[in-house]
Amino acid sequence: MISTEKFYFYCGMFRTIKNLLALFTGSPPAASRTDLPETLKLIFSRRSCRSFASGDISPEDIEAILDAGRFAPSTVNLQTWSFITFDRPQWQQTFERPIPFKGAYAVVICADQNRLSELFSDFAETPAINMSFAIFNAGIAAMNMNLAAEALGIQSIMLSETGRTGLLDTAFLVEKLGLPEGVLPLTTLVLGRSTLKLPGIPPRQPRAAVVMPQRYQPECKDMLRDWFDQMFIGFKIGHPLSNFDKQLAFYRKKMLEAEQTVRRYFGR
Amino acid sequence: MISTEKFYFYCGMFRTIKNLLALFTGSPPAASRTDLPETLKLIFSRRSCRSFASGDISPEDIEAILDAGRFAPSTVNLQTWSFITFDRPQWQQTFERPIPFKGAYAVVICADQNRLSELFSDFAETPAINMSFAIFNAGIAAMNMNLAAEALGIQSIMLSETGRTGLLDTAFLVEKLGLPEGVLPLTTLVLGRSTLKLPGIPPRQPRAAVVMPQRYQPECKDMLRDWFDQMFIGFKIGHPLSNFDKQLAFYRKKMLEAEQTVRRYFGR
Repeated sequence: MISTEKFYFYCGMFRTIKNLLALFTGSPPAASRTDLPETLKLIFSRRSCRSFASGDISPEDIEAILDAGRFAPSTVNLQTWSFITFDRPQWQQTFERPIPFKGAYAVVICADQNRLSELFSDFAETPAINMSFAIFNAGIAAMNMNLAAEALGIQSIMLSETGRTGLLDTAFLVEKLGLPEGVLPLTTLVLGRSTLKLPGIPPRQPRAAVVMPQRYQPECKDMLRDWFDQMFIGFKIGHPLSNFDKQLAFYRKKMLEAEQTVRRYFGR
Repeated sequence: MISTEKFYFYCGMFRTIKNLLALFTGSPPAASRTDLPETLKLIFSRRSCRSFASGDISPEDIEAILDAGRFAPSTVNLQTWSFITFDRPQWQQTFERPIPFKGAYAVVICADQNRLSELFSDFAETPAINMSFAIFNAGIAAMNMNLAAEALGIQSIMLSETGRTGLLDTAFLVEKLGLPEGVLPLTTLVLGRSTLKLPGIPPRQPRAAVVMPQRYQPECKDMLRDWFDQMFIGFKIGHPLSNFDKQLAFYRKKMLEAEQTVRRYFGR
């Protein structure tokens, strides 16, 4: 007989190893279909890239990517987004350092309620609704641009925090980019060339925790343990010298600071 | 000589005709490239569909579309979305009428901060930040599903208001779908088959109003006049018996009612 303690130790080790292996083998179930159209293959194989080579992107490709954003669908076709664009020298001039991960081109994607504020002045009283729609639409446009880039063989990443490039640095970006009231910076889409083989797909929450037939499933919270373990292991592999709790504490501090700025966009 | 009055009348008529024609001829500049990859063709040719035929969608295709949502990128890979799914009988049972536009399948796409609330309990103090990320990510997943459907020859529409299916009916959907705190319904993605030739692309704001090199362009507001005319003409053609101002007033009333409910998600 092994002791109870040892039993739990081995169980824990087994879970860790299982979740470590899952890190590198995860794949959408539908990706195994043999009749997948080109676009679905692209959707299932795209990865965020964190290291770009020195090559440039042609103006035609940049136009196609930005057109994919501009021509994305949106609530009542209101196109509540702005794209602030940068080539390498423009980024350097504005931020006094290179584009993160040595990208070739960057687009700060903003939810924009400013541009329509005069045409639809009746709607000034509903900032939470307006901003929710604007942010949702910006997400739609962002994904369209991301996939457009992939289709052209251009890699990308949507940054949420690295290098003061997104929502958590709203106050900083408002000042740097001259964003008026009602324009909320959400992410920076960094584009570039890369020949790196990108790592496996990051861990996904189980289907049953996310896809719920007909009604919300309150048990979804209980299904996230393996996923959270995988995220933790992934973090340790990606940042062997960092402390997970310290990293969380760093985010928390930054989020608390940004909260006051961001909350104003929703009517405070 | 013609009178000043007549001059302005003809100018106005000229603008109206120009904008009427623009309604049916708009196309992304990049769509004229001869070397467009499959996925970009799809991105530029997709349209929202408002009338579906009777056919069903296979379980394999539904899985592929939902996988496209689940495997979309998200902020720190947190997958802050929920998809409440309905086939025809499930929708009928829940809402006591058919899926809007006779769709075959529907997905209520929600921003979800509930599922992670215990794992990341430290972040309870930053609801505006959390919800902004969650809504943005839900938009990303929504577009991935939309394009996945297109790739499989399935048409779709993301509803914002029709049939009480989105953000403006948050209170109604919270009750009908049992949504807990922190789960905000944004849109319903309706999927189906259609053989209709879909109409031209809805009017887009000019590039210079949306794409801004290096810094926000405050003049962007002044560039929207033709676009707004085109939207107005499009509305008149689509709803010949409706009154534009009445429609705006209807939206405004609904938005004001929803505002109080939605604002609570951001910390009020």
